[in-house]
Amino acid sequence: MEDKALAEYFELLRYESVGADPAHLRDCVSCASWLRKWLGKLGFSVELVYPRQEPGSAPPPPVVFAQRDGAEGAPTALVYGHYDVQPADPVSEWKTPPFEPTLVDGRVYCRGANDDKGQTFAFLCGMRDYLAGEGPKLNIKIVLDGQEESGSAALSALAPEMRRRLAADVMLVCDTSAAPGMRPAIVAGLRGVAHFTLRLTGPNRDLHSGEYGGVSPNPAQGLAELLASLHHPDGSIAVAGFRDGIEPPTHEELSAAEASTPSESDCAADIGCDPVGGQMGKTLAQRTSFEPTIEVNGIHSGYGGPGAKTVIPSEAVAKMSMRLVPGQSPRGAFAAVRTHLEDRCPKGMKLEFEEVNQGTPAFRLPLASPVFRLAADVLGEMDGRGALFQWDGASIPVLSVLREASGAAPLVVGWGQSEDRIHSPNESYSLVQFGKAREWGRRILEALG
Amino acid sequence: MEDKALAEYFELLRYESVGADPAHLRDCVSCASWLRKWLGKLGFSVELVYPRQEPGSAPPPPVVFAQRDGAEGAPTALVYGHYDVQPADPVSEWKTPPFEPTLVDGRVYCRGANDDKGQTFAFLCGMRDYLAGEGPKLNIKIVLDGQEESGSAALSALAPEMRRRLAADVMLVCDTSAAPGMRPAIVAGLRGVAHFTLRLTGPNRDLHSGEYGGVSPNPAQGLAELLASLHHPDGSIAVAGFRDGIEPPTHEELSAAEASTPSESDCAADIGCDPVGGQMGKTLAQRTSFEPTIEVNGIHSGYGGPGAKTVIPSEAVAKMSMRLVPGQSPRGAFAAVRTHLEDRCPKGMKLEFEEVNQGTPAFRLPLASPVFRLAADVLGEMDGRGALFQWDGASIPVLSVLREASGAAPLVVGWGQSEDRIHSPNESYSLVQFGKAREWGRRILEALG
Repeated sequence: MEDKALAEYFELLRYESVGADPAHLRDCVSCASWLRKWLGKLGFSVELVYPRQEPGSAPPPPVVFAQRDGAEGAPTALVYGHYDVQPADPVSEWKTPPFEPTLVDGRVYCRGANDDKGQTFAFLCGMRDYLAGEGPKLNIKIVLDGQEESGSAALSALAPEMRRRLAADVMLVCDTSAAPGMRPAIVAGLRGVAHFTLRLTGPNRDLHSGEYGGVSPNPAQGLAELLASLHHPDGSIAVAGFRDGIEPPTHEELSAAEASTPSESDCAADIGCDPVGGQMGKTLAQRTSFEPTIEVNGIHSGYGGPGAKTVIPSEAVAKMSMRLVPGQSPRGAFAAVRTHLEDRCPKGMKLEFEEVNQGTPAFRLPLASPVFRLAADVLGEMDGRGALFQWDGASIPVLSVLREASGAAPLVVGWGQSEDRIHSPNESYSLVQFGKAREWGRRILEALG
Repeated sequence: MEDKALAEYFELLRYESVGADPAHLRDCVSCASWLRKWLGKLGFSVELVYPRQEPGSAPPPPVVFAQRDGAEGAPTALVYGHYDVQPADPVSEWKTPPFEPTLVDGRVYCRGANDDKGQTFAFLCGMRDYLAGEGPKLNIKIVLDGQEESGSAALSALAPEMRRRLAADVMLVCDTSAAPGMRPAIVAGLRGVAHFTLRLTGPNRDLHSGEYGGVSPNPAQGLAELLASLHHPDGSIAVAGFRDGIEPPTHEELSAAEASTPSESDCAADIGCDPVGGQMGKTLAQRTSFEPTIEVNGIHSGYGGPGAKTVIPSEAVAKMSMRLVPGQSPRGAFAAVRTHLEDRCPKGMKLEFEEVNQGTPAFRLPLASPVFRLAADVLGEMDGRGALFQWDGASIPVLSVLREASGAAPLVVGWGQSEDRIHSPNESYSLVQFGKAREWGRRILEALG
């Protein structure tokens, strides 16, 4: 990879563009401005759109909109990516500074090295290669999100009012993983996601656990009981109505998912423990591709320091998220969880829902579509093994919105690997992966026109 | 209260003597040295004893031993108190600096203002008054603990080897509360306490909750399920064998406890929520005086910042404590809880017990003892309402050990009130309370000889 692209990649990574944290708004704006300059040099007209700020909420990071007209009547490609990243914490577990890209043995270590600054920028470098080639004809539109990691609220609100601006034939997204061994994979479905914060409040202060043990209710104990009520002992979800509307996969989808899902032993080696999440009796492919989840992303209450502090905490807070599958309504699923928890609020305590983001539904794509056949051909040229179809357990919530607003057929192909540790400390992306994503960008645009 | 004693009280409070935190060892040593000087001026021979350090553990704060011989053949009083305090966090909730004593409307706000620097020092000021009086005859021994808030491990190890040094007729302790309305109260029983830390480990890193939701077990969810299993829906403890050996109170004890326990409505006004902790169907007096507890003092796992971070946490940690009642063996109760939790360790995860302190058992005292009759007379002179007997839900673990080593009859009388907020932010102690504790110290020593 030539020095220029690598230097640009590192510049992009150094912005601490944590879109979810208002404290990093300025970093997000600087990052978006850098992208505007970069795209401007390629002949794009670029605009940073600052969405309407919701009352009482922090101003969201801007969305980068870019457009470059091609030949008359040529097809239009809409490229979607996001420049926001996950928070870096726990920072103490990083072996290198989380926002200082560090190249070790052909891998770049940095928050966002993969997700999604790395994959998006590699694809954009491929687009630059395409534009430098012979007679590029495509019309290209680009949308770079600043809130993908926290639900894309702003872009989701803007998109429906931008139908003409977003109209395209195909939507290209590089924000997912290849199959194990870097075998190319086309995403045929994504789970939806929603998240919220639970706050359970008990006594008006932290209490002495001797003086008040047996007197005061304990929010840490109460929240534990609430969270425990969400699942049955077999790991299935115990929330009435949560599964309403779920459309089971077809036989073809299920067998394609089985073919692209890592083995139990590969999973165990990856995560360092038995892959026993989800409902017993279902296969890994079923659990990651076609089953919903309710996860505790964090729980905090009371004392956590060294030694003992024998208190009854005044409150307990849990960060929660849900992954949704085709047929599930985010609104309906959240309402079911809310009712389930409120009905079980422990006596003497107050339960509050905060930071509620009902997100967007899952989506599935027809395996036999023309754009999938075209992509399969291109990926077959890149890798003799050919492409697999996969149903990514992860979510790109805004894709449903953009698909609706643009009328484009989504083509989601990424080059991540589990060792990239996205969302974890020491996230990384190899130059080999970067090269694949870049080559894919060039080749698919050439194939489209 | 004269300036001298108040100035000394403030000096003592400024030491950040958090005995449980190795980072504050030096503060504890400085605090103990200050006490040595103070007692030396009263003619005590004083020694700071640094207990044997357990391998691998941080050096514990010293224990202050002091002795002053009185008249030949006069009785010996052993005064116990502790100079260590609870950690100050959450520091953000303090209205004044936690270690800068601040006098507002006759109340001193500071960590340790009551528990137990304040109550102990007030009693010692009373002792100074006694020694300044006519012909004090008593032999006085003093033990000031530096680890009471974290289990008194060091003193508990030292005491059995110091029987001659500790031998006394009566043991005086000022570390508890008066009945509501400052009515004098004699402690007839204390609950035992034990504490430990639980660590549940799952995947080798925080994982993306989409990529791995349905694959990886979730330690935050798993720990919630473990903690929820500790109690039945009616609030009773669900751990088999935990209640083995419990000796129920006598009718006399129960009615005395009922008489000295605040009403449900007073409790609710104090803690700001319904006092519905503990087992349904038992009275407040039963639940605080004669029933054991298992409490979650803190739980921490995964993300806790603003917005969302959709991870499956790598581990979850809970700080736990238990209050024990007469007849319960700390060793047996802990073993029962350990077995209960280990038997339920969620699949795919590892459960570890850390910082285990099995503490000491509860103790009860015979209501008809001579020392109680003497104390009742003295307290009757101080307050026309006379003294109540109470069974304090809190614990002074080392008292059982000192009682055994010294052969002394414990006389535990304190002047705390719930508004003192011990163990909470904005702990305080009023000058009126300080004066009562001081007067009690002088009067009881005079009555003893």
